[in-house]
Amino acid sequence: MTIAVHTAMRDAIALAARAQGLTSPNPVVGCVVLDAAGERAGEGYHAFAGASHAEAAALEQAGDRARGGTVVVTLEPCDHHGRTGPCTQAILDAGVRRVVYAVTDPSERARGGARRLAEAGVEVESGVLAAEAERLNAEWLTYARLRRPHVTWKFAATLDGRSAAADGTSQWITGAAAREDVHRLRARCDAIIAGSGTVLADDPRLTVRGFEPHDHLITHRRPLRVIADARARTPLGSRVLDDAAPTLIAVSEETIGDTGEQDAAALAARTAVVRLPRAAGKGGVDLHALMAELAEREIVSVLLEGGPTLAGAFLADGLVDRVVAYLAPTLFGAGPAALRDAGVTTLAEAYHLDIEDITTIGPDLRITAAVREQASGARADALTAPSRREH
Amino acid sequence: MTIAVHTAMRDAIALAARAQGLTSPNPVVGCVVLDAAGERAGEGYHAFAGASHAEAAALEQAGDRARGGTVVVTLEPCDHHGRTGPCTQAILDAGVRRVVYAVTDPSERARGGARRLAEAGVEVESGVLAAEAERLNAEWLTYARLRRPHVTWKFAATLDGRSAAADGTSQWITGAAAREDVHRLRARCDAIIAGSGTVLADDPRLTVRGFEPHDHLITHRRPLRVIADARARTPLGSRVLDDAAPTLIAVSEETIGDTGEQDAAALAARTAVVRLPRAAGKGGVDLHALMAELAEREIVSVLLEGGPTLAGAFLADGLVDRVVAYLAPTLFGAGPAALRDAGVTTLAEAYHLDIEDITTIGPDLRITAAVREQASGARADALTAPSRREH
Ligand SMILES: NC(=O)c1ccc[n+]([C@@H]2O[C@H](COP(=O)([O-])OP(=O)(O)OC[C@H]3O[C@@H](n4cnc5c(N)ncnc54)[C@H](OP(=O)(O)O)[C@@H]3O)[C@@H](O)[C@H]2O)c1
Ligand SMILES: NC(=O)c1ccc[n+]([C@@H]2O[C@H](COP(=O)([O-])OP(=O)(O)OC[C@H]3O[C@@H](n4cnc5c(N)ncnc54)[C@H](OP(=O)(O)O)[C@@H]3O)[C@@H](O)[C@H]2O)c1
Repeated sequence: MTIAVHTAMRDAIALAARAQGLTSPNPVVGCVVLDAAGERAGEGYHAFAGASHAEAAALEQAGDRARGGTVVVTLEPCDHHGRTGPCTQAILDAGVRRVVYAVTDPSERARGGARRLAEAGVEVESGVLAAEAERLNAEWLTYARLRRPHVTWKFAATLDGRSAAADGTSQWITGAAAREDVHRLRARCDAIIAGSGTVLADDPRLTVRGFEPHDHLITHRRPLRVIADARARTPLGSRVLDDAAPTLIAVSEETIGDTGEQDAAALAARTAVVRLPRAAGKGGVDLHALMAELAEREIVSVLLEGGPTLAGAFLADGLVDRVVAYLAPTLFGAGPAALRDAGVTTLAEAYHLDIEDITTIGPDLRITAAVREQASGARADALTAPSRREH
Repeated sequence: MTIAVHTAMRDAIALAARAQGLTSPNPVVGCVVLDAAGERAGEGYHAFAGASHAEAAALEQAGDRARGGTVVVTLEPCDHHGRTGPCTQAILDAGVRRVVYAVTDPSERARGGARRLAEAGVEVESGVLAAEAERLNAEWLTYARLRRPHVTWKFAATLDGRSAAADGTSQWITGAAAREDVHRLRARCDAIIAGSGTVLADDPRLTVRGFEPHDHLITHRRPLRVIADARARTPLGSRVLDDAAPTLIAVSEETIGDTGEQDAAALAARTAVVRLPRAAGKGGVDLHALMAELAEREIVSVLLEGGPTLAGAFLADGLVDRVVAYLAPTLFGAGPAALRDAGVTTLAEAYHLDIEDITTIGPDLRITAAVREQASGARADALTAPSRREH
């Protein structure tokens, strides 16, 4: 691999990053085309579902200069007829000599692009800057490989791990800058999940607001609000039922008593309600079923906003991929913990994280970490929703 | 102030830092002497109690070149006759024209050095790089100003603030590198405090070990082990009673029942025991009295190693100056919290910290922060022990 290709891949990753969180249900993809002499001839990225593919945009910019050249792209080119034609065909039509990509496309329908190109005589190389390109597409790759949305659990706590004071006061544990940052996280996910406990305690809006995004695409994002609410306890006057964004209430499909039935019916008259099996052995709805339901709706990335009980259940089910912790430089010494009942009783069962980033946000600290695969294999549970790559 | 003086002060601070944590009951002090032309003529620092003062060492190195020159020193020169003569006299004898220092000496006996020099016709300037020099001497300045030891509370916890798992397993929450780092903290303090709860649960050694210090002075440090143990429950077979380091057990002076009396007597036959008033309205010994007792013993800096109950009591009494949190990249969702009963019931009462440093130590995170003065003024309680500056 030449330095030119390495540099081009780095640039392709940066191009792809521009649309991070904005392309669902598609991956983010960046592409650089080098001409036969190795000079930069074109570049492009996939901006949103329905927009042109990165390869097509870059090839169009390169025009005739693509002939005999190299396509450097962050994801294996697709080979299926979606809203736009297959990228493999565009590459062959342009007379490209060589294709270098970072990450193999694991999805059913797009897979096989590399083989198709190789069979047609194109020189194909993969794995260049793969780790970086993987991280960039973590949400979509989880969705494509596991057939469920990628889940980021966000929590705010004091340095001693309290998510509220003893009297329940919890608003503004962290500062204004951290709260604005949460809106940035929300803007780049497809759904925001909270438990009925949080809705009853805080009546949150769960919408994107309060910051000035530079990209108008972000401004128009209205992630689906999802409430895990087995007993249909979400009050009809809740803010999550306003029309600021769509809302889905997940209730239990088993008989939930007369009032429960009435409540569920009243909710269904106001917003989308889905009935799911109960979680085995505990309260609440089956979270694997909820994830399958969301995958059906082409939800690629989810921001789990708690509370501590629902977060514990997600962790115990092996359904948390990333943690974003906002730690305030304060100490309480009392009050509810940030995380509850995650199934850990002894040190050896702890969830292990790999820290990816530590940043100060105003006076607070933001720690971003990936959750390591647990040995227990809770994630092995197969989910049934198909992955649809409609890019 | 010239650039030469600014640079010299920066160097003086670096010189002083070499002996950080090793000079008790004295401050750390660094000094640079510039000759009349502003050229570097001598430098020195105070290495340990009994060694020469920074100014004396630097002036000796400068010799005749000090005449008409400038003394740049991190702390106001002392004006009292201790083990060595007063620095003011050495400065006057050397014929120095100007003295620039960073921080004013608040201690009773050394205070007045600047005035003495000015009255003798020396040009005196103060406050240069004062914030940095303050931080360097935080321990000693607290001791000199408040007449109690400076307290650093160290704790280890998971990212969700648990100091042990639900079954009590807590050894090795953090990795080997963080544990080694704790020994580095221990080596630079004068006393290590733990509560009877921690002694009973973990039987810790509370000694300095397990790392290769570069400075032989550190190797020979054996900080006093202090156990807050009102009811004299420390078992006679505890490791803190071995001869690896001196130990002081603080028991209650009130009648503690027949067994308590017997236990206290048995402990007194083995190690130093001090009887203190009970903490008002709660269990345990009066921590202000304990701090006064330690100040009497010329303990300048204390490392508070917990547990959560004792740490909460120290915080509530306004006796924690700095927090060092080792956060492991793990999640438990259950188990005891890192901090308990610190007197906070609502958000507005939280303890606020100013983060000074964030470092990764192996896989773990170390956060160092200063505790902000509380509005409540718990710290106003006057302590009676005098500050002795024997340098
Ligand atoms: N600091 C933060 O970052 C943060 C974030 C959010 C919330 N909070 C605080 O957390 C508190 C609420 O905590 P919480 O733990 O009671 O609320 P929660 O986790 O939001 O909700 C728990 C409820 O979710 C429902 N649920 C549905 N499916 C579930 C499943 N599979 N597993 C577990 N629960 C499921 C259960 O009720 P049903 O059985 O009725 O469905 C359960 O009682 C509030 O005080 C809020 O301020 C803090
Ligand atoms: N993760 C960490 O960094 C860390 C560090 C240390 C300990 N720990 C864990 O903490 C657990 C022990 O916690 P703990 O809270 O029971 O122990 P602790 O804080 O070490 O000891 C509490 C005891 O200290 C005595 N005490 C004396 N004066 C006191 C005062 N003024 N205020 C409050 N207490 C005073 C009290 O007993 P008397 O009334 O009998 O004197 C009290 O019960 C252990 O499981 C240990 O593993 C964790």
